Amino acid sequence: MNFTFLGTGAGMPAKERNVTSMALGFPEYDGDLWLFDCGEGTQRQVLYTSVKLTKLTVIFVTHLHGDHLFGLPGILGSRSFQGAETPLHLIGPVGLKEYVETSLKLSGTHLHFPVTVIEIEHNGVVYENAHFVVTARELDHGIKSYGYRVTEKDQQGELLVDKLKAIGVTPGPIYKLIKEQSEVELPDGTKLETAAFIGEKRKGRIITVLGDTRTCAATVELAENADVLVHEATFRGDAEQLAHDYHHSTSIQAAETARQSSVKTLILTHLSSRYQRKEQLGLLNEAKSLFPHTFLAHDLWHFQLKMQPRA
Amino acid sequence: MNFTFLGTGAGMPAKERNVTSMALGFPEYDGDLWLFDCGEGTQRQVLYTSVKLTKLTVIFVTHLHGDHLFGLPGILGSRSFQGAETPLHLIGPVGLKEYVETSLKLSGTHLHFPVTVIEIEHNGVVYENAHFVVTARELDHGIKSYGYRVTEKDQQGELLVDKLKAIGVTPGPIYKLIKEQSEVELPDGTKLETAAFIGEKRKGRIITVLGDTRTCAATVELAENADVLVHEATFRGDAEQLAHDYHHSTSIQAAETARQSSVKTLILTHLSSRYQRKEQLGLLNEAKSLFPHTFLAHDLWHFQLKMQPRA
Ligand SMILES: [Zn+2]
Ligand SMILES: [Zn+2]
Repeated sequence: MNFTFLGTGAGMPAKERNVTSMALGFPEYDGDLWLFDCGEGTQRQVLYTSVKLTKLTVIFVTHLHGDHLFGLPGILGSRSFQGAETPLHLIGPVGLKEYVETSLKLSGTHLHFPVTVIEIEHNGVVYENAHFVVTARELDHGIKSYGYRVTEKDQQGELLVDKLKAIGVTPGPIYKLIKEQSEVELPDGTKLETAAFIGEKRKGRIITVLGDTRTCAATVELAENADVLVHEATFRGDAEQLAHDYHHSTSIQAAETARQSSVKTLILTHLSSRYQRKEQLGLLNEAKSLFPHTFLAHDLWHFQLKMQPRA
Repeated sequence: MNFTFLGTGAGMPAKERNVTSMALGFPEYDGDLWLFDCGEGTQRQVLYTSVKLTKLTVIFVTHLHGDHLFGLPGILGSRSFQGAETPLHLIGPVGLKEYVETSLKLSGTHLHFPVTVIEIEHNGVVYENAHFVVTARELDHGIKSYGYRVTEKDQQGELLVDKLKAIGVTPGPIYKLIKEQSEVELPDGTKLETAAFIGEKRKGRIITVLGDTRTCAATVELAENADVLVHEATFRGDAEQLAHDYHHSTSIQAAETARQSSVKTLILTHLSSRYQRKEQLGLLNEAKSLFPHTFLAHDLWHFQLKMQPRA
């Protein structure tokens, strides 16, 4: 699972940080690719990465503020121009559909792939495929803003073929039954308990990507035991009142949520452009003092989360 | 009059060229500033220039294709964030109003200045202020696309105060009459022919900025005798059929229009990203072979057009 941070700034683009977007790529699953948010200029940021828009299957929009949204029509147009014909899902707050349809219609943009817009009506599962379930919960940001919890399905253990062959059970339809049932009857009539012939399970990973938000119960619940929590840190710890007034979080609050939720890794993003490089380091360090395994994302930064070992 | 090319590419952004936008600044008129088109990422390009969004008074949109439009909501938001409270005019094809209103509404963007959207219903004058008249004409681009002809008003000659004083006419309300009338009666009853006491006129400048288009009668008429013609050159001369099929022009066609219209300077922009740097030079040179005073714009390139000398 590869995180590529395409934009890590808040509000307006700066030279150093473009507005928000993050790609999540799955080389372990045929290179499937998702985006979380799509601020203006995201399609240009993509040019500086190995992200392939043709592999994109889902775009999760956390909320409709411009710094998370205004790059969306351009991404759709680029993906089509690059020859993609496979369906794309857009998931986000109510209003997303009107925004996308109006932008495409008025700009005369004709896509060569089908787009399905799923507007979130209430908390719960918003997407599922063979490997993942994604749930959304509303956060606290003045306008509807969602956090997404991506739960990878546990992988069943593999069939221990050599061990089966050793007792004379050769490949055939029986192998499917052995995987699915706790006990099977072999052709010679004997019963076989299957557990001993199945390898170890692989636990799925959990990652949580939050939209802009104040600290609230939902942030902690969405992040519970996550392997990676991507959390906004618009403000420094000393600007708690400002963060509250603008419906944002401080780096300290993000770290506190990471700690309470027992996540493994915290990644801070969505920094206000008011902070110069040196101050950004301070913002990271204060978070680390509370939650040591914290990273501060910057544009084009790449983070890899490996699969869990089988156990 | 300062031209700042914020984006000079066609269709999709490239590393070298962002999508289309051009700023036209008037240091001779209090730093008034206009934009022509506003492709995605324009607000970030602005960060690399001396362009001040607070000075912006008009945005002319040539057509609603995304590479000319999708940066508009971001520019509006940035201008507001930077503290602008003065009115802004948006001028462009029908549909511009719906696009702007929908984007601002759904993204919860509240501007601290009034916006007036003027949708062009037919060819003719679309804007006028103390110094300029702007007319628009429809071009040939598949969707409604306009070219703009900006005509600076001629400046009256200045009163030759020393010469008036020398014949005993001292400053007072009479000076206004001398400027306005061909003959005035002085306090002592004598008639004065005013022409000899007024300096030389300054002819206004003409600049023409075209939207995407095939060569057509409108391009030539809009450009007639212009000091500067800004013309798209999406394709190289050898791709005339391609240019026609996609409703665009070649560099050769742009140069031919410049020649026919007797413009003084031709600036090529809106290049397809298919052309590498060396090919771009070829594209410029073939235009120059037809129309020598041609420039090829690149991102952040600056061009100055001085006032006409008084004559
Ligand atoms: Zn926000
Ligand atoms: Zn166009």
